[in-house]
Amino acid sequence: MSEMLKTGAVIGILGGGQLGRMLSVAASRLGLRTHIFEPSANPPAADVAHQLTTASYEDHDALRAFAATVDVITYEFENIPTSALDVLESLRPIRPGREALRVSQDRLTEKTYLAELGLKTAPFANVENAEDMEKAVAEIGTPSILKTRRFGYDGKGQSRLKSTEDAAQALADMAGAPAVLEGFVNFSHEVSVIGTRSADGQVACFDPGENVHRDGILHTTTVPARLSAGQRMDAVLMTANILNSLDYVGTMGVELFVTPEGLIVNEIAPRVHNSGHWTQNGCAVDQFEQHIRAVAGWPLGDGKRHSDVVMENLIGDDMERVGEIALETNAALHLYGKADAKPGRKMGHVNRVQVAAKG
Amino acid sequence: MSEMLKTGAVIGILGGGQLGRMLSVAASRLGLRTHIFEPSANPPAADVAHQLTTASYEDHDALRAFAATVDVITYEFENIPTSALDVLESLRPIRPGREALRVSQDRLTEKTYLAELGLKTAPFANVENAEDMEKAVAEIGTPSILKTRRFGYDGKGQSRLKSTEDAAQALADMAGAPAVLEGFVNFSHEVSVIGTRSADGQVACFDPGENVHRDGILHTTTVPARLSAGQRMDAVLMTANILNSLDYVGTMGVELFVTPEGLIVNEIAPRVHNSGHWTQNGCAVDQFEQHIRAVAGWPLGDGKRHSDVVMENLIGDDMERVGEIALETNAALHLYGKADAKPGRKMGHVNRVQVAAKG
Repeated sequence: MSEMLKTGAVIGILGGGQLGRMLSVAASRLGLRTHIFEPSANPPAADVAHQLTTASYEDHDALRAFAATVDVITYEFENIPTSALDVLESLRPIRPGREALRVSQDRLTEKTYLAELGLKTAPFANVENAEDMEKAVAEIGTPSILKTRRFGYDGKGQSRLKSTEDAAQALADMAGAPAVLEGFVNFSHEVSVIGTRSADGQVACFDPGENVHRDGILHTTTVPARLSAGQRMDAVLMTANILNSLDYVGTMGVELFVTPEGLIVNEIAPRVHNSGHWTQNGCAVDQFEQHIRAVAGWPLGDGKRHSDVVMENLIGDDMERVGEIALETNAALHLYGKADAKPGRKMGHVNRVQVAAKG
Repeated sequence: MSEMLKTGAVIGILGGGQLGRMLSVAASRLGLRTHIFEPSANPPAADVAHQLTTASYEDHDALRAFAATVDVITYEFENIPTSALDVLESLRPIRPGREALRVSQDRLTEKTYLAELGLKTAPFANVENAEDMEKAVAEIGTPSILKTRRFGYDGKGQSRLKSTEDAAQALADMAGAPAVLEGFVNFSHEVSVIGTRSADGQVACFDPGENVHRDGILHTTTVPARLSAGQRMDAVLMTANILNSLDYVGTMGVELFVTPEGLIVNEIAPRVHNSGHWTQNGCAVDQFEQHIRAVAGWPLGDGKRHSDVVMENLIGDDMERVGEIALETNAALHLYGKADAKPGRKMGHVNRVQVAAKG
């Protein structure tokens, strides 16, 4: 299947959150339909999808029925159970493929993979027990950070070590889950590159964005990022290297630390990424459409930026500011349709298009 | 109901074509859901709607059931049967209101209304029979054009009179339908203003676009249009005048002829309009979102243009060019998901963002 999916073809999306929602809208712009598979009720993506299956990833009959209605399968999150993937893969192509999921589902595997590609990462060591922990702290030192190998996101499953005295508590925080101790990187700022690779191996990257986090959650992405021309080139080449070596098909987010010694890869996400939401209002073809194009066997857009943008996430009670933001000039709201504005929950984002004064 | 509809509220949309489809996507960006009412099967809007009712406008039970699930009702086309509106209006607010529909459903009523507002229109006369036709031709002369009073669009239901000899044939072309004879206007180009009025009477207009038609169908809209500062102001004031006098809530398209004697109103459409599609890639808040904001009791965005755009409609076998267009720099595709690319059928459009060279 390297031919372009045609009008009315169906893309199956595993996961019905805001990323699935925005993927679904992007698919519609290309005349394609989506079918969302999501265990929980009233998923955000269902508001804009052609079809919805509400079922567990353990329900193999539901997975088979889902696969039968779609032309290709993609996903909005990386922690899909392996058994579900086995069922689906026997019926329809899954894009991006299994290798990207295998690598990114486990921090240790991911960091090892990146290091073997010749990319710089923070120093890291595997920690499964107290003995590992002792060795790891001796090797990597403090300050450092212990992170679960699997299922971490938005700062969850992490524990900081200010000194060696914090080691026991950090290990206890993991509650027995395998973890990785990561050394402290002295970086000036974080940037990310959103890159896409098509089914026939074409690569296109958006301009790097500069990320600011708050309470462990992405707060803003500003484009363009503060990078020299050389750093910008490095960032894109590193991303292309990862995409090509994984034989990747789709959009990926690559987070990079900017240090005096060069760019260091923090982590990769085998999917559209929060730090790429600015592309919706800064580019004619956004990260969601690039992903859909890749998955659907279409050629990629060139991803050129027509406008500078500052993206701000709306978390929890930031929703109270929506009425004000709606009045701002050149501010594009993107709300996710979630009913409960719980603290720490991503409710939407706003892209502020930066317009130079003109006559 | 002048308070803002909240996350998860439902907007009912009468009509499931491409305008309903793009309204539905815009609603999703504000966290709102849509329910589409459409008689024909597989409507384009259903791909991105929360709910779909497939029923006739004569099915009053279906209309009542539809109304019961929505918070407010809007529409994507003006020719909704009056009996359906009567049923719906007793149950939920309809925005824009009945007056806008009454005026715009009939060319004679519309032109009379606009003339009484003090706006210039082409000379016109009512034609219901041969006697009317003779009087009308004597008064208005040729070249002129005979148009059905109701249900005309994209050049359908029109017959041109090059000389008085064409009068009989033109009248026969109307097949007994009441018509209007319109005098020829010597205009240099056509522009249109897309304006929106909120529930509390705020008005916001997008920059006028310049329209080029081909075979009676809109071909391109270019923004900015060729207009002097004075003409631009006139165009916006005329639009605001119409919106205010109709006590209008929602987005409207106003087509204007540019002549040496000033701007002449060609026609108005009480809905989002093809000549406003450029706003999707030229503004942070597009015409569809402005309409949804108005209908949902939200404040309007200011509608400022951040980029110049040329919109091109993709009609019928223009779809064969989609593969090429997908490769263009700064070209945003918007396809409608229609299976059959019949001649003259609107299949999609492309917004080409015009980027000034920069460093």
